Amino acid sequence: MKVRFDRVDLHYLRLRAHQKWGRWDSDVISLSVADLDYPPPQEVQQAVERWLREERTPYGPPAGDPELREILARKVRRRNSIPATAEEILIIPGTMFGIFLACFLSLRPGDEAVLTPSPVYGPFWKNVRAMGATPVPHDLSLEPGFAYLKETLASRIGPKTRLLMVCNPHNPTGRVLRRDDLEAVARVALENDLTIFSDELYEDLVMEGEHISMASLGKEVLDRTITVFGFSKAFGIPGYRVAYLVVPPRLRDRAVEAMEHIMVHTDTLAQAAALGALEAGERWLKPLVEHLRDMRDRSLRRLEEMPGVACTPSQATPFLFVDVRSLGVSSEELCRRLLEEGRLVVQPGTHFGPSGEGFIRLNLATSWEVLAEAFHRMERVFHKMR
Amino acid sequence: MKVRFDRVDLHYLRLRAHQKWGRWDSDVISLSVADLDYPPPQEVQQAVERWLREERTPYGPPAGDPELREILARKVRRRNSIPATAEEILIIPGTMFGIFLACFLSLRPGDEAVLTPSPVYGPFWKNVRAMGATPVPHDLSLEPGFAYLKETLASRIGPKTRLLMVCNPHNPTGRVLRRDDLEAVARVALENDLTIFSDELYEDLVMEGEHISMASLGKEVLDRTITVFGFSKAFGIPGYRVAYLVVPPRLRDRAVEAMEHIMVHTDTLAQAAALGALEAGERWLKPLVEHLRDMRDRSLRRLEEMPGVACTPSQATPFLFVDVRSLGVSSEELCRRLLEEGRLVVQPGTHFGPSGEGFIRLNLATSWEVLAEAFHRMERVFHKMR
Repeated sequence: MKVRFDRVDLHYLRLRAHQKWGRWDSDVISLSVADLDYPPPQEVQQAVERWLREERTPYGPPAGDPELREILARKVRRRNSIPATAEEILIIPGTMFGIFLACFLSLRPGDEAVLTPSPVYGPFWKNVRAMGATPVPHDLSLEPGFAYLKETLASRIGPKTRLLMVCNPHNPTGRVLRRDDLEAVARVALENDLTIFSDELYEDLVMEGEHISMASLGKEVLDRTITVFGFSKAFGIPGYRVAYLVVPPRLRDRAVEAMEHIMVHTDTLAQAAALGALEAGERWLKPLVEHLRDMRDRSLRRLEEMPGVACTPSQATPFLFVDVRSLGVSSEELCRRLLEEGRLVVQPGTHFGPSGEGFIRLNLATSWEVLAEAFHRMERVFHKMR
Repeated sequence: MKVRFDRVDLHYLRLRAHQKWGRWDSDVISLSVADLDYPPPQEVQQAVERWLREERTPYGPPAGDPELREILARKVRRRNSIPATAEEILIIPGTMFGIFLACFLSLRPGDEAVLTPSPVYGPFWKNVRAMGATPVPHDLSLEPGFAYLKETLASRIGPKTRLLMVCNPHNPTGRVLRRDDLEAVARVALENDLTIFSDELYEDLVMEGEHISMASLGKEVLDRTITVFGFSKAFGIPGYRVAYLVVPPRLRDRAVEAMEHIMVHTDTLAQAAALGALEAGERWLKPLVEHLRDMRDRSLRRLEEMPGVACTPSQATPFLFVDVRSLGVSSEELCRRLLEEGRLVVQPGTHFGPSGEGFIRLNLATSWEVLAEAFHRMERVFHKMR
C-alpha cells in the first residue's frame, strides 16, 4: 500500500490531534508539538488488533514482552552496533519516561546534570529539576551551522555533576553529532565517572550524515550509558506510550525495579503497537524521510526569501530551528504575535532553555499545502514588524 | 452475552498470563498475582477497536481524554459521593503509578508515611522508600476479624509524618473500613495537617458491607485527599495500564505537571479500554462479584477442614489472607514448600510487610476446578508438616 504524506486532513486532525491541532480555533495552523500529521502505518493497527484478539489482558513481565525485547536487542545490535542482549532491553511507556527514569536513577538533590548540546527538549530541564538537581547547559554554537562545541564540555563539569544528558539527533536544531563529538562526550564521562543518558529518539529521521549511537563507542562507554529509542516520532504514534531503553548491567536491576514500582510494566497494547511499527520499518520510513527532506528543502527556500530570518538546514528530525534574532523581539513575544496576527502556532526557542532566545522551532511533518499557508502567514507578520 | 466465570482455560492462561501462570512449569497452579483468570468483558475490546479505527495516535491532553474525564467525574459524584468535576480527574497509567505519584508529590527524604491498615500491598512500602522516606506501619488486629485499630493510629504520627496511605477495601485482608474507621483517619489527618492517599482500587469487588470513599467525608477531607480508582482488578485488564485519580485543587497543578514530565499522558488505547470497562459496568460486575462470593464461601469451607489454619472471611477483593501461624514455619518457608511439594504458588504475607508473617494470600479469581485442586495440594502439604 502506497503511503501518502502529501495530503493531510485538517478537519480530522482537529478531532484527533488534541495537543497539536484540537486545542486551537479552527482558523489556526499549528507547526507546534512533535506529532506527525499523517495516519500511522497500517501494521500498527494490525498488530494491536492481533494482541487484542489474543486477550493479552493479564499482567506482563516488568521489563516488557520477551519476544519484543528479543527483536529490539537484534535491532540494537544490527542498526546501532550496541552489543546488547534482550536482558539489557527495558520497554518503557514512552521516551519521556526514559528521561525521567535516567534522572530518577542518577540524581539526588544538589546534584548537577549537564545537558549537551543545549538548547534542548524542555523535559530534560524539568526532570532534572524535579529531582532537586540543577541542569547545567552546554550550548552548541548558535551561529549558522550549529557547531557542537566539544572543547567547552569539560568546563561544564563540576564536583556535583553526576549525569551527562545527550540529545542526538538533536531536538530542536536537527544536528547529528559526529563521531568525534561523541568521542569527546565519552571521554569527559569516563574522566569524571559520569553516567550518560543518550536520547536517540530521532535516529530514524536522519536526512544527512550518519546516526552513531553513543553506546557503540566501546565497552567502557556502554557500561555507563542509558540509551532511549522510540517509535512515537518516526511512526507518528506518540499517543501510544511506548519506547525502550538499553540499560547496562550495572544499572539494570535498579531500572527494572523502579519500572515495576512506578508502572508495573508498559501497557500491553502499546507494546503491540511497537511490534507493528517494527514490522512497517523501511516500507514506512523511506518515503517518510524523503517527504521530510522535501518539506525541509522547500521550507528553507521560503525562509530564505524572508528578510531578517536565518536558518541552518536540519540534518535530522522534522524540525527547523529558525534564527529570528534580527526581528528584535523575544521568542515568546514573536510567538504571541504569530498566533494573534497570523493565526499560526510555533514553539518559542526558550522552551528549550534560555539560549534558545531569539529562535523558533517549526515542525514540518505535515503536507506542503499546510506549510505553504504557514509561511505565507509568517511572512505577513514578519513584514509588519519591520 | 452470558459471562462465564466457572471455566478457565489454563493452557491459554499459561500463554497470556505471564506473571501469574506463564513463568511457572505447566504442572504448577498459581493463586498468586492479582489477575482475574477470565477473559475481559467484550466491551473493552470493542472500545479499543473503535479508537484504533479512529486513528487516535497523536499526543493527547496530559490529564487524559476530556470525554473520559467527564464520565469519570459523573461516576465519582454518583457512586462515591465525591463532589469532583472533570478538572479534578487525572487519568494515570495504572494504580501503581497513583501510589508512586502520591509519594513523589508528598514525600521528601527523611519524611514518614503511615500505612493504614498494615500489612498492605508491597508497593506502598517500596514507593515510600524510593523517595528516601520511611514507611510506618499501623497494623490492624491480626486476630480473627482483622479489626481496624483506630485508637492506635494517632500514636504512629510523629513530627516527620507527611502522608497517610489508606488501602480500602484492604489488600490483602479484604477488610472494608467502616465509616467510623474512616472518620478516625480523617481526624488524625486534619489534626496533623497530613495529606491522605486513599487506594480504593477494589471498590467494585465488595461482597459484604458498603464501600465508603474517604474523600466523601466532607470538604476538609476532600481538600487533602488523593484517591485512586481503577479498572485492572474488577475488569481483569491489568495489562492495559490505566487508572484515575481524584486530586484536590490544591495539588492538581503539581500532579498534572508531574504526569506530563514523567509520562506525557496515559496511553490512548488504555484510555479506550477504560471506556469499555465503564460500558460493561454492572453487566459484568454483578455476576463477577456473585462468582467471587461463591469462590470465597467454598474456599472458607475447605480451609475450615484443614487443621492449623484460621481464616477471616474477606468482605471485598478476590483474596483470602489465611492465618497459618500454627504451622510453625515462616511464610516464605511455607510458600517454598507449597511450591516444591505441592506445585502451588501463593503469596507469603511478608510481601505485605513484617506483620504479615505467618499469613499467606490466596487469589480466588479463578474457577472452582482450579481452587479445588489447589486446596487439595495445600492440604497434602500441610498434613505432611504436622
